[in-house]
Amino acid sequence: MIKLYDFELSGSCYKIRLFLNILGIEYQKENVDFVNKEHKTPKYTALNPFGEIPVFEDDDLWLRDAQAILVYLAGKYDGSHTWFPADAASQGKIAQWLSTGGGEIMNAAGARLVKILHYPLDLEKLQTGANRVFRILDDHLADRDWLELDHPTIADIACFPYTALAGEGGIALAPYPNILRWLERVKQLPGFIPMPGITPSV
Amino acid sequence: MIKLYDFELSGSCYKIRLFLNILGIEYQKENVDFVNKEHKTPKYTALNPFGEIPVFEDDDLWLRDAQAILVYLAGKYDGSHTWFPADAASQGKIAQWLSTGGGEIMNAAGARLVKILHYPLDLEKLQTGANRVFRILDDHLADRDWLELDHPTIADIACFPYTALAGEGGIALAPYPNILRWLERVKQLPGFIPMPGITPSV
Repeated sequence: MIKLYDFELSGSCYKIRLFLNILGIEYQKENVDFVNKEHKTPKYTALNPFGEIPVFEDDDLWLRDAQAILVYLAGKYDGSHTWFPADAASQGKIAQWLSTGGGEIMNAAGARLVKILHYPLDLEKLQTGANRVFRILDDHLADRDWLELDHPTIADIACFPYTALAGEGGIALAPYPNILRWLERVKQLPGFIPMPGITPSV
Repeated sequence: MIKLYDFELSGSCYKIRLFLNILGIEYQKENVDFVNKEHKTPKYTALNPFGEIPVFEDDDLWLRDAQAILVYLAGKYDGSHTWFPADAASQGKIAQWLSTGGGEIMNAAGARLVKILHYPLDLEKLQTGANRVFRILDDHLADRDWLELDHPTIADIACFPYTALAGEGGIALAPYPNILRWLERVKQLPGFIPMPGITPSV
């Protein structure tokens, strides 16, 4: 049985919920009280010493890190072999955006933590970092519908949530029309589910 | 022909040089003048809009991001299929440390940039972040020789360089005896090569 240690408002947990739903996989959720920092308690750091959500369990396999969980789920449960194809070139191309989704785009996640939960972080620096990667992402999407391979992959799943939630960090997406069209494309995927702050397709 | 856009003192570029040498792959190097910020010039950002090194070319495939390049090289050129095995559980486990190698461990890389190139970053915060991940890494290595799968994988390659270079960022590794033993193990790998600041095995 798959179990996801989850927080409803976390974009990182939502990556996993979204992909599980797209793949049509049943799973259990265990709520982590992120607002009250349950993820930093000894009970939780015994599951993930990094003290971060999500954490993922599939029988005796435990994984931390949203991107790693996406890699596992695609390899194990994607019968279409399209979300993280087995060939080296596809995996390398997709891995670039797994790094971006867990890296530069997390500037937008940080900005959101400042705005929503009043984290004492440098909002301006985070917004600048987010705008820098959104400029690159928008240019990249100027002549393609999906981040790599001309079809949806876990690259899109990894980069979607905190881009779609940028407004909650005070970052406007209006200057990025290609991103806006790509977000809409993701929302049209069979199995798409929303989360608070990310509405279904209009 | 493989071409690596390289800077000798970059631990991220060294990840790729090290793995190419372990795999016994011939390649061309093109030097990027990192000190004079050539990686931020239009000529280079046309190759990698993120303005970061390394960049990698294999015929018509272009990749940015050291971790993505490791994924590609293992999939394409590792005849042993041990460095990034094809099964979902192995890939998921290894992907966790690709995130860590490109993520938390880069705190040590940032501290080194402050010390060596006088980057205007928050040294104390970077050192604290590095020590936090080194504590986790040391605990993880208490009962294992390699990060995952009981043998060397690209997880080890991704995390090795900036851990081994920690001293150049003013971060002592003496409190982490399991890390020190693991670094020595990596240095004993067939095909290991040093870089400035990382000496061969004693």
